Amino acid sequence: MLTKEDIRTHIAAFIGEKNMHTKQEDLVCYTYNAGGAAPSAFLPILVALPITAEEVSKIVGFCNEHKISVVTRSQGSGLSVNAITESDYSIIISLQRMNSITVEPEILMAVVGPGAITADIKKAAAAHSLMYPPDPASFTFSSIGGNVATDAGGLQCVKYGTTKSCVTGMQVVLASGEIIRAGGKCIKDVTGYNLTQLFTGSEGTLGVITEITLKLIPLPQAKRAMRVAFNNIENAAKAVSAIMTSGVVPSIMEFQEQTLIRAVEDYTHAGLPVDAGAMLLIEVDGDVSTLKPQVEVIRRVCEQLGMVDFHVAETAEEAEQLWVARRSGLPALARVAKGRLGGDPAVPINKLAQAVHMLFEVGKKHGIKVSCQGHAGDGNIHPHFFFNSDEEKKTAAKARSEFHYEIIKMGGTVSAEHGVGREKAPYITKQLGEAQVGAMRAIKKALDPNNILNPGCIFGGQA
Amino acid sequence: MLTKEDIRTHIAAFIGEKNMHTKQEDLVCYTYNAGGAAPSAFLPILVALPITAEEVSKIVGFCNEHKISVVTRSQGSGLSVNAITESDYSIIISLQRMNSITVEPEILMAVVGPGAITADIKKAAAAHSLMYPPDPASFTFSSIGGNVATDAGGLQCVKYGTTKSCVTGMQVVLASGEIIRAGGKCIKDVTGYNLTQLFTGSEGTLGVITEITLKLIPLPQAKRAMRVAFNNIENAAKAVSAIMTSGVVPSIMEFQEQTLIRAVEDYTHAGLPVDAGAMLLIEVDGDVSTLKPQVEVIRRVCEQLGMVDFHVAETAEEAEQLWVARRSGLPALARVAKGRLGGDPAVPINKLAQAVHMLFEVGKKHGIKVSCQGHAGDGNIHPHFFFNSDEEKKTAAKARSEFHYEIIKMGGTVSAEHGVGREKAPYITKQLGEAQVGAMRAIKKALDPNNILNPGCIFGGQA
Repeated sequence: MLTKEDIRTHIAAFIGEKNMHTKQEDLVCYTYNAGGAAPSAFLPILVALPITAEEVSKIVGFCNEHKISVVTRSQGSGLSVNAITESDYSIIISLQRMNSITVEPEILMAVVGPGAITADIKKAAAAHSLMYPPDPASFTFSSIGGNVATDAGGLQCVKYGTTKSCVTGMQVVLASGEIIRAGGKCIKDVTGYNLTQLFTGSEGTLGVITEITLKLIPLPQAKRAMRVAFNNIENAAKAVSAIMTSGVVPSIMEFQEQTLIRAVEDYTHAGLPVDAGAMLLIEVDGDVSTLKPQVEVIRRVCEQLGMVDFHVAETAEEAEQLWVARRSGLPALARVAKGRLGGDPAVPINKLAQAVHMLFEVGKKHGIKVSCQGHAGDGNIHPHFFFNSDEEKKTAAKARSEFHYEIIKMGGTVSAEHGVGREKAPYITKQLGEAQVGAMRAIKKALDPNNILNPGCIFGGQA
Repeated sequence: MLTKEDIRTHIAAFIGEKNMHTKQEDLVCYTYNAGGAAPSAFLPILVALPITAEEVSKIVGFCNEHKISVVTRSQGSGLSVNAITESDYSIIISLQRMNSITVEPEILMAVVGPGAITADIKKAAAAHSLMYPPDPASFTFSSIGGNVATDAGGLQCVKYGTTKSCVTGMQVVLASGEIIRAGGKCIKDVTGYNLTQLFTGSEGTLGVITEITLKLIPLPQAKRAMRVAFNNIENAAKAVSAIMTSGVVPSIMEFQEQTLIRAVEDYTHAGLPVDAGAMLLIEVDGDVSTLKPQVEVIRRVCEQLGMVDFHVAETAEEAEQLWVARRSGLPALARVAKGRLGGDPAVPINKLAQAVHMLFEVGKKHGIKVSCQGHAGDGNIHPHFFFNSDEEKKTAAKARSEFHYEIIKMGGTVSAEHGVGREKAPYITKQLGEAQVGAMRAIKKALDPNNILNPGCIFGGQA
């Protein structure tokens, strides 16, 4: 077994000492994760900051040979404890510097480095009147590599799909150090297995993604936002199904329940309907001529389901005010209690009301305050379990766990857009079944026989 | 090793003798494939016609234990020799009888058996004002299981994506006989690896798909078709790129080159522009109010690129006449020569003209007649290599092979929508590289260690 010093010397030979962190004060930064979970107890031996796939290949090949764990990371914004070291024989590869963005407008594609910030890709595309639709809440600071590794979602998925819908190809360094190019710039491609989609959402456990080819779409001409309030969550949820089957496909359809509406109103004084049981924030986009008809269809559907308020933003400023309510959710909730556990389960869209009710039942049973918001058109709920003490935090964790099991019973998924990470690893067998988890482990073993790539992620302790 | 009689007795015990074919005259039908290639030299031991996943599970588990090859098939309409037996120790599972269709309009989904005919799924969806968009040319007789197994494309993919875009979940019998449920009815789901997308396009080599969950979309309100002619293929190809980046996303954008236009005109007398070098058949869909503006954008773009004819169908009957030209392509070509080799490569959309030119150069070099048509908006070309004798057929095969290698050099793919099957197995290493094929073989081995599932497909002789 090589010493840590040996490992540092070897990797320095591949990428240069100046492209590595080895000081404790730097390494400790990489033990943290965005989800608020405890930092890793294990400092990485080093953090490598390569700039080419060939450098990544050398590092990974070397680590494979010596059975050193490799955790890939960029912005560390994952919310499921996706990218931390779990042993002291681990290194971190940060892909932050591999952040190139090349838009190819004539084929509606962009070729990007995994370290590119998602918002920068959106900007670069928009300069050519194109859109990269996925918009996880973190898009202004998260990297596309992380977005692809977790198949990140966001608000606009209801119309445009999650990150995976946009990934047509990628360059990947396998555990062996070999570099492959899966997929590419062809819109249709069925030559061999769809490794592009297998790697998407695999959370760094099957390879290190060193380049991504993304499909772009024409930027919609215009959009219009509206807010609809309902007396109760049932009617709001019924409206979600009814809108989705009305022929109109909203580009955004978010929901918030009463506790959250009130917290946001306390925080923003934006004039929200605080007596409403639930609120939908909806956006439609497309050709200017289609906006009004789309809004009218939605209004008609909501009227039939007993809406109590319907407000359409007539100007960009008014629309901006509507979105303040969405964006102020988390800061507003920070005032509800000292701490909060989150999550990202999803259910089939006709079970949204049932899932929200279950959340409140679980909260009541455990005697803790809960709330939720979510991407209604996707059936994706962000539950909040509040706590004010360490004791209450344990109860909140127990309640969340129970809620996850209920979600599975409803035919839902414990993770819709954040990934399994380490946080949701305990639930996968219950959700997927032993045979399926067995098949996934077999694939993991086939592609990473020494289990060096992000060990512990998705499968828990023993991958 | 069990005798054939033993195998028949065992499988009859699982599903009943009446649900099996064992007579030579029946078995021989299953040695044929739609692509026109020679039938398999190996009769299957039997053809099993199960009706439940549990029956499939028993058959596959038994075959795995005794290392009997299993080829899954329904309509046998695959065009790349996708589903034939390659040894006399093989059985065929026909999923034709597992053809249930249940539309769940409130969640915009359908749950279907693999044997359901794609056209029937479209009809069932349309009854709820919903659309299942993928439309391979075979959709009136091909099964959804085969469509999923090859990630079948079609005309409308340019706007709505290929089959894979619609598959959100599936039940699969693994080689071990275990039954798993990958994905499901959640629009967003990142719990574990995306096995749904791995199985999609895996051509029966990783498992037997026994149920599929499909995402549907609202049926577009209206559509309008048009025909645009250009002097040469360059301008037509430039128009394709220009239209795709104009902000309009056509629901169909087909092209035909001159040889084909003339053959179709000879056959149909539809008044096609026979002096044009290339022709685009375009359809736009959506809200009625958007159709005219979309047509005008396309007209403007095409005008700038020197179109010589622009004809918009003002009525459903006129539109139908336009599509006759598309549908008459293959029957018309049957008059050009005695035989024809086809294909389904694709290139990035800005290389369409280059690929078509290369096709004609290759034809010229080998002294054979060629032609092509294709799904222009996807960069997907259907080349035709004509022959009138066995000798010329060999030349045509040589020319096609050379064309495939040129496609790979352009960053293209040898298969866009028919699958690799056995026909394109010789090209995969050239296209994907040894390391990538190695990764795919490792996955195959992980999930099917005895190589019983459709052996020879995708990877050729030794999987």
